[in-house]
Amino acid sequence: VAATDPATDAPPRVAVIGVGLVGGSVALAARSRLGAHVVGWDPKKGAAAVACDTSAPDLASAVSDADLIVLACPVDDIADTATKALTAAKQDAVITDVCSVKSFVGTLDDARFIGGHPLAGAESSGVEYAREDLFDNATWYLTPGPTTEGFKLERLTRFITGLGARPQAIEAQAHDRLMAAVSHLPHVLANILVEGDIGGIAAAGPSFRDATRVAGANPDLWRGIYLANADALVAELSRSIDRLSEVRDWLRVDDGKAISAWQGAAAGRRARLDAAITGEEIEEVRVTVPNRPGVLADLALSLGRAGINIHDLSLAPSPDRESGEVAVWVASENAAKARELVDEVAAA
Amino acid sequence: VAATDPATDAPPRVAVIGVGLVGGSVALAARSRLGAHVVGWDPKKGAAAVACDTSAPDLASAVSDADLIVLACPVDDIADTATKALTAAKQDAVITDVCSVKSFVGTLDDARFIGGHPLAGAESSGVEYAREDLFDNATWYLTPGPTTEGFKLERLTRFITGLGARPQAIEAQAHDRLMAAVSHLPHVLANILVEGDIGGIAAAGPSFRDATRVAGANPDLWRGIYLANADALVAELSRSIDRLSEVRDWLRVDDGKAISAWQGAAAGRRARLDAAITGEEIEEVRVTVPNRPGVLADLALSLGRAGINIHDLSLAPSPDRESGEVAVWVASENAAKARELVDEVAAA
Repeated sequence: VAATDPATDAPPRVAVIGVGLVGGSVALAARSRLGAHVVGWDPKKGAAAVACDTSAPDLASAVSDADLIVLACPVDDIADTATKALTAAKQDAVITDVCSVKSFVGTLDDARFIGGHPLAGAESSGVEYAREDLFDNATWYLTPGPTTEGFKLERLTRFITGLGARPQAIEAQAHDRLMAAVSHLPHVLANILVEGDIGGIAAAGPSFRDATRVAGANPDLWRGIYLANADALVAELSRSIDRLSEVRDWLRVDDGKAISAWQGAAAGRRARLDAAITGEEIEEVRVTVPNRPGVLADLALSLGRAGINIHDLSLAPSPDRESGEVAVWVASENAAKARELVDEVAAA
Repeated sequence: VAATDPATDAPPRVAVIGVGLVGGSVALAARSRLGAHVVGWDPKKGAAAVACDTSAPDLASAVSDADLIVLACPVDDIADTATKALTAAKQDAVITDVCSVKSFVGTLDDARFIGGHPLAGAESSGVEYAREDLFDNATWYLTPGPTTEGFKLERLTRFITGLGARPQAIEAQAHDRLMAAVSHLPHVLANILVEGDIGGIAAAGPSFRDATRVAGANPDLWRGIYLANADALVAELSRSIDRLSEVRDWLRVDDGKAISAWQGAAAGRRARLDAAITGEEIEEVRVTVPNRPGVLADLALSLGRAGINIHDLSLAPSPDRESGEVAVWVASENAAKARELVDEVAAA
């Protein structure tokens, strides 16, 4: 297949536009793992030089000689940035991006552009947090279109694999619907929860803490994400409004049967979701421990010594922080042993 | 003050109705910490004997001689159980319950009943999980009414303090509104999230995992809770529906200014909420680590050695579970040191 791609044999010439956490990590990984020569450009002076071989004076000169161009700007700017990059790029270049919304790609109408979205590290921003291994084993969505040339998709796929990530092709609209459901709606709901009548609250259970963790996440970034995915998010909001109205109706007419059935169906969906994401049966093991420095270490060490991997973990501290309930999720085959071990730690 | 309460000087005679996780833990703690003689009754044969001194043949004989009666039955049964207990109880007895909804207390119209709600361990059920220390440092809401006698409230408060918990008086309706906002609505929203169009999902970010953790929690228990708090939950659902409609309107007219302001306000509310719950400034520190057995232990140990307490912790595994992003919440004064230590662990 290499013969179809003229750029395959030489180390790739890569341009990164927007050198923050994600762009900077692309640059670092491309240089050290693929031997790429990376030219960077960022509106913030000095940012590109931190992670790239060369810092270009402007966008056009950064991309003009590149085989592969990664646009890592905020979603607000992506349409403009993509248009500028496509104008300045070579005809055989591949241009991609890292934004969490992908429908805009269709409006570009250029076969050189293949949308991308790595599921990796979006919380701490800035090139000072960039790392070569940011994308290790992360899903990296790609949204090739009907006019995408095979060898360009191949070049991009090989590049992303080289960065350590796992490319997964998905149709752009399906990607945006999925993100609306699993990321953008949860952020909206977290905001709605913290707006509740919670004045004078002295304690909150784990469900509230978990559900509100992302409330108010980076306002500028998230305004851009919500608006860029407005259609899919509006659909999810409408679905939520309809469903909340239905639950409200059940409560008003005291329909316990409907509520039980709905709650039970949600339990089934939650379990299938776990299985789909992890590929194996996962079980929850709970234990209450004193909330002293080191106790979580004892617990994790005890499981580690037994070779039991912790798939997920949640710590729900008591109101005064003197104790906490720890929930660990482990493979079902390890659950009985894990329960024994965490009980030992709790009793110690 | 003891002179006002005829029951103060002798060890209390306690009745526990419903001997599961919570009732059983009340019995164990009352016996070992207060020297109480505990009579228990549970519809499940043999359950009371596990945690109580005496197992009564029926509810009436369990409560007839008690100074203090704790009803620890499911919320579905509480009104009936309370009526039966009040009929059989002594005139100077104090009767309380442990249900997560409190408005029903007003309908009992009996000054001997003072509603209660401990914020403790509701996930694993059954007397086999009962523990003497279940309530240590937990907030225990009490809802005295206008006819509550001072010495009865005093007796109950002393009892709850003796179990290790921290009594906090709250008006019953305010309690139920608070629970609707911080517990019942989050459970409803978690169910709505797992009902989204998430077929074919291969990976989910931490926001979705956190927000859906309680989806489908114990259907029988939660049907009862939702219905028992129907009025307050309906109000929260209406608020959510209105707010979701407003957000939908902003998206439809591309009102970035309103969305930014709303997201920013949520950030402020989230921060104030953290401060209110913990009483100190808390900061988040993130790091990506390989998801091998023991790595969380290294991280927690490293913080423990430095005397840094972990206030909350969340582990977001990568899709293939080979690495994970760990977020730890520590006191702001420890954040810089914690960041240094977790980076060391991640780099090791």
